[in-house]
Amino acid sequence: MKRIGVLTSGGDAPGMNAAIRSVTRTAIYNGLDVIGFRRGFEGLLEGDVIPLTASSVGGIIHRGGTILRTARSERFVKPEGVREGLLRLREYDIDALVIIGGDGSFRGAYDLHKLGYPVIGIPGTIDNDMAGTDCTVGFDTACNTALQCIEKLRDTASSHERLFLVEVMGRHAGFLALEAAVAAGAEYVLVPEKKFEIDDLCKKLHYAHQRGKSHSLIIVAEGVMSASDLSSQLKDTGGYDARIIVLGHIQRGGSPSSFDAVLASRLGGGAVEALLRGEAGVMVGRISGKIVTHPIQYAWEEKKDLDEDMMSLVDILGI
Amino acid sequence: MKRIGVLTSGGDAPGMNAAIRSVTRTAIYNGLDVIGFRRGFEGLLEGDVIPLTASSVGGIIHRGGTILRTARSERFVKPEGVREGLLRLREYDIDALVIIGGDGSFRGAYDLHKLGYPVIGIPGTIDNDMAGTDCTVGFDTACNTALQCIEKLRDTASSHERLFLVEVMGRHAGFLALEAAVAAGAEYVLVPEKKFEIDDLCKKLHYAHQRGKSHSLIIVAEGVMSASDLSSQLKDTGGYDARIIVLGHIQRGGSPSSFDAVLASRLGGGAVEALLRGEAGVMVGRISGKIVTHPIQYAWEEKKDLDEDMMSLVDILGI
Amino acid sequence: MKRIGVLTSGGDAPGMNAAIRSVTRTAIYNGLDVIGFRRGFEGLLEGDVIPLTASSVGGIIHRGGTILRTARSERFVKPEGVREGLLRLREYDIDALVIIGGDGSFRGAYDLHKLGYPVIGIPGTIDNDMAGTDCTVGFDTACNTALQCIEKLRDTASSHERLFLVEVMGRHAGFLALEAAVAAGAEYVLVPEKKFEIDDLCKKLHYAHQRGKSHSLIIVAEGVMSASDLSSQLKDTGGYDARIIVLGHIQRGGSPSSFDAVLASRLGGGAVEALLRGEAGVMVGRISGKIVTHPIQYAWEEKKDLDEDMMSLVDILGI
Amino acid sequence: MKRIGVLTSGGDAPGMNAAIRSVTRTAIYNGLDVIGFRRGFEGLLEGDVIPLTASSVGGIIHRGGTILRTARSERFVKPEGVREGLLRLREYDIDALVIIGGDGSFRGAYDLHKLGYPVIGIPGTIDNDMAGTDCTVGFDTACNTALQCIEKLRDTASSHERLFLVEVMGRHAGFLALEAAVAAGAEYVLVPEKKFEIDDLCKKLHYAHQRGKSHSLIIVAEGVMSASDLSSQLKDTGGYDARIIVLGHIQRGGSPSSFDAVLASRLGGGAVEALLRGEAGVMVGRISGKIVTHPIQYAWEEKKDLDEDMMSLVDILGI
Repeated sequence: MKRIGVLTSGGDAPGMNAAIRSVTRTAIYNGLDVIGFRRGFEGLLEGDVIPLTASSVGGIIHRGGTILRTARSERFVKPEGVREGLLRLREYDIDALVIIGGDGSFRGAYDLHKLGYPVIGIPGTIDNDMAGTDCTVGFDTACNTALQCIEKLRDTASSHERLFLVEVMGRHAGFLALEAAVAAGAEYVLVPEKKFEIDDLCKKLHYAHQRGKSHSLIIVAEGVMSASDLSSQLKDTGGYDARIIVLGHIQRGGSPSSFDAVLASRLGGGAVEALLRGEAGVMVGRISGKIVTHPIQYAWEEKKDLDEDMMSLVDILGI
Repeated sequence: MKRIGVLTSGGDAPGMNAAIRSVTRTAIYNGLDVIGFRRGFEGLLEGDVIPLTASSVGGIIHRGGTILRTARSERFVKPEGVREGLLRLREYDIDALVIIGGDGSFRGAYDLHKLGYPVIGIPGTIDNDMAGTDCTVGFDTACNTALQCIEKLRDTASSHERLFLVEVMGRHAGFLALEAAVAAGAEYVLVPEKKFEIDDLCKKLHYAHQRGKSHSLIIVAEGVMSASDLSSQLKDTGGYDARIIVLGHIQRGGSPSSFDAVLASRLGGGAVEALLRGEAGVMVGRISGKIVTHPIQYAWEEKKDLDEDMMSLVDILGI
Repeated sequence: MKRIGVLTSGGDAPGMNAAIRSVTRTAIYNGLDVIGFRRGFEGLLEGDVIPLTASSVGGIIHRGGTILRTARSERFVKPEGVREGLLRLREYDIDALVIIGGDGSFRGAYDLHKLGYPVIGIPGTIDNDMAGTDCTVGFDTACNTALQCIEKLRDTASSHERLFLVEVMGRHAGFLALEAAVAAGAEYVLVPEKKFEIDDLCKKLHYAHQRGKSHSLIIVAEGVMSASDLSSQLKDTGGYDARIIVLGHIQRGGSPSSFDAVLASRLGGGAVEALLRGEAGVMVGRISGKIVTHPIQYAWEEKKDLDEDMMSLVDILGI
Repeated sequence: MKRIGVLTSGGDAPGMNAAIRSVTRTAIYNGLDVIGFRRGFEGLLEGDVIPLTASSVGGIIHRGGTILRTARSERFVKPEGVREGLLRLREYDIDALVIIGGDGSFRGAYDLHKLGYPVIGIPGTIDNDMAGTDCTVGFDTACNTALQCIEKLRDTASSHERLFLVEVMGRHAGFLALEAAVAAGAEYVLVPEKKFEIDDLCKKLHYAHQRGKSHSLIIVAEGVMSASDLSSQLKDTGGYDARIIVLGHIQRGGSPSSFDAVLASRLGGGAVEALLRGEAGVMVGRISGKIVTHPIQYAWEEKKDLDEDMMSLVDILGI
């Protein structure tokens, strides 16, 4: 192996730059050349390349977003697109490709792998909904960002004795919602993984009010329903007047936390080392502090479950 | 003068607790007793009081919100309410009242003043729309909060080459929108003080795109229109697909910045000193670093204008 | 079991309040009373108690430090002290004691346990040097604090082309130094676990300079040597002029990160649940996301090693 | 005027990059070319130049430090150095030079001015010790950084009932120390402008202890004495055991606050506009929100005094 490529794909996540830096420097340390593709698989198809050097990835470890930019590629979803991508990779004499992204991006990588091309995936998404790793790159930072925003709302909620409703990201997974709820001491959390009844929530709110709670915070993952829909239901069913906040893209940005900078650095290094060992068609992950690999499709084929004890904890600590 | 009262009213703002602390300790330092009313004028009417001591205001200087809570009072808007408030103040042997809040709260204070009761106002609002002071308590913190959120969006905007639209607070005033726009290096800002044409904005966006700008940020004060309405207009008129973020109540919360903690401390001290000098029916403010007083109605009768040079600067620096 | 006690002991760590809140609310949820002892074992001996209720632990989840205060007790190190502590616990009808602290505090807990009294330990220290848990409460926050400080130095280091030397906490363990070094992209890290030669460091610096590095960051754990001693050695041996920063107690403070708030909440809940199950003389920990218990002496008898791959990563990524 | 130069000199300060960006874009907006000199006057002498364009200053507004780097130049202090600098400026066809820095840097600028060369100064230093502007670029950010660090110490101080001693920057001026002391609610502040007696401080500490204060914070500007010397004196004279923290270079770094980003943007724009109006040998400043100019030597010839009321406030609020 002489030259590897790297790209970021799908939604951006804090720590992607730290991963790019680590892939690049570990590769160079081991005598490899590194080429970056801009805008994900789209840039691969268009040949939008940039050589990466030890110094060109200097000073990026703490920048949010991704210096390689990212995009979703319509073309790469189709077999012709994948075959064209393969041609480009050969054209640039690239011996293996590192894909940093979520499960959608890993599926693209898997398609390349099935054509016999060596790929390796680094799980990067704030959703944490990928098996094969305790945490995905970006999840911890997003939790901290959500926590810091919610803390600011607490100030106002307790000053005004109000009900606040915070919508966080998570179309199919409630990891971020649940972690933020426990971290922020929220009274209720709604996640896509668990059936939700507006009557139950209203009963709980009613009971809390009777116990003397002057203000409450509800965290809702976007996959359950929008904060504004939930607000309407709370009004209609229980007569509650909630203030709503949609955290939105703020959750994707910011400098990576120490946890994510370290995780991204380790996975970046681990990915290159796995390639050097001859592994391909795999993803790297960190489980109990150890860097491990799994077949890349493991990320979406294996189900990663929400911790039931964490769900109960919200109820217990919300008393 | 032996005993003074203090209350926070209207929307909460970072630094209100620092002001409460400074009013309390300066009063005690000068031999006065201090009584806090909870939930603004509503608490005054209901006799919801709490004695404030040097130690009970310890450790609050950096907490967001207000330990006295705040509310808007329907009753206090009417003459009967004001007269009842006056009775309560006399009942508690309170010789003067310090009101921390925005211009709505100052109007309530003015009504008390017109009945001959000694009041003094401390301008506290994130909107900065009060004359008689260079800055209101809370404005600087809200600017920093908005800036930090917008910076996180920048990461994603530049990673995805997108147009972002950020709605900040400001129903009648664009101070926060303008300051945040210059601080964040936004390309466009829409403020209530200036007529806005969707065609102009689309032309500017078009021209920027031609010059090679890959992403842009627009800051809009809520008083101009909602981000979602603006987004629709951008779509309809120019075909632009903007991501929207509504910062909302996040802007009101958080620990006060150094600037606000100092400003609140100085205005709190200045308010008590003004009362001790025999001033009443006034507001305290800081102009060019000096603590000054103006008649309380000055806050809304005098117009505080947006800086025209700041408006131009957004255009110049957005090239 | 009807009533439990809780105390924080040793150096304070971010998340201790979140643990106190979780212990208290989980206990109350399960029908137990909770008594807090102030100032660690010293407060136990002096009977410095405070009843803890669901509302008295409200709003503390994000405060740094510990509302129960903490101290090191000279008296409790001796057998008479431990026996006196036992008498106090019985006097207050306390059926079990939760100790939040580092290994020194766990040794005190162990002494009580050996007298047959039910204790349970929650590992809380920024040093992370306790076995039986992947992370101790406070470690992640301290890493983030160190990272944020070091990032600010980077700005100045790269502006002035300088060598910076940052001393972080860690008398006997280099976890914090190593994590901060990887997270901050430091070029060198010195930890107590690994022998250090000034000549090696100077050679590396010399070589980096030759490769064109304009500035470098060295992280040193206080247990290796003080930053000022290291600075002298760098001057004497290699002629290097380093700027030094000692992070000191800043590392202990601040609101807990999302990670620590969640970890503390889970361990607090887990400790009470373990007591209710009849476990005693144990510590709770989180390993791979699961709450587990080990005999309390495990914390110091079992050696927790630095990750060798992390050490190598500093060298690789510092190129 | 066709082409201007810009450099940063002396100690770096947050907001310098925002000033560079604003100078550059305002100049380009007005049809001028812009050349940056790296490493201050040293880079001017060595011809270390870089052309600045609208896009090369994109994305730098929030970076700490200075992309132009900075240095102190031994050579430029001497008349020969200044004359050589002048030759370089003419060689590069540069019609005017913008200097961003403190009063030392302004003296260099003044020397060029006396040779008839058009210069303009933008006050950038965290010390705020320059007349002609209410605030220098970087001061507000440094205050916020100091405040955030001190807040973390408060957590530990109140948990352990300790005396903390914080040394902040300020060799000749106490602006930063005083602002941080008021903002953080410190009990005592020592500034170079005011004579200090260890006996007085010990008496105050003794009295505070008697009143029941369990912990205290003292802020000392480095120009008074080092924290470690003060700690020794407190030990010797009063028997006090203080924990010390030296904030050091952390205070210079970090992203500029909203206040500094705006101030730097306005001064950068104002500097170019002043040059276009034909002004030279001046500095720009902001006084009461307006951009003004003064002769450049005004910065050090006019004395900027500490606010006496602020000094008293520390005593009053520290009760």
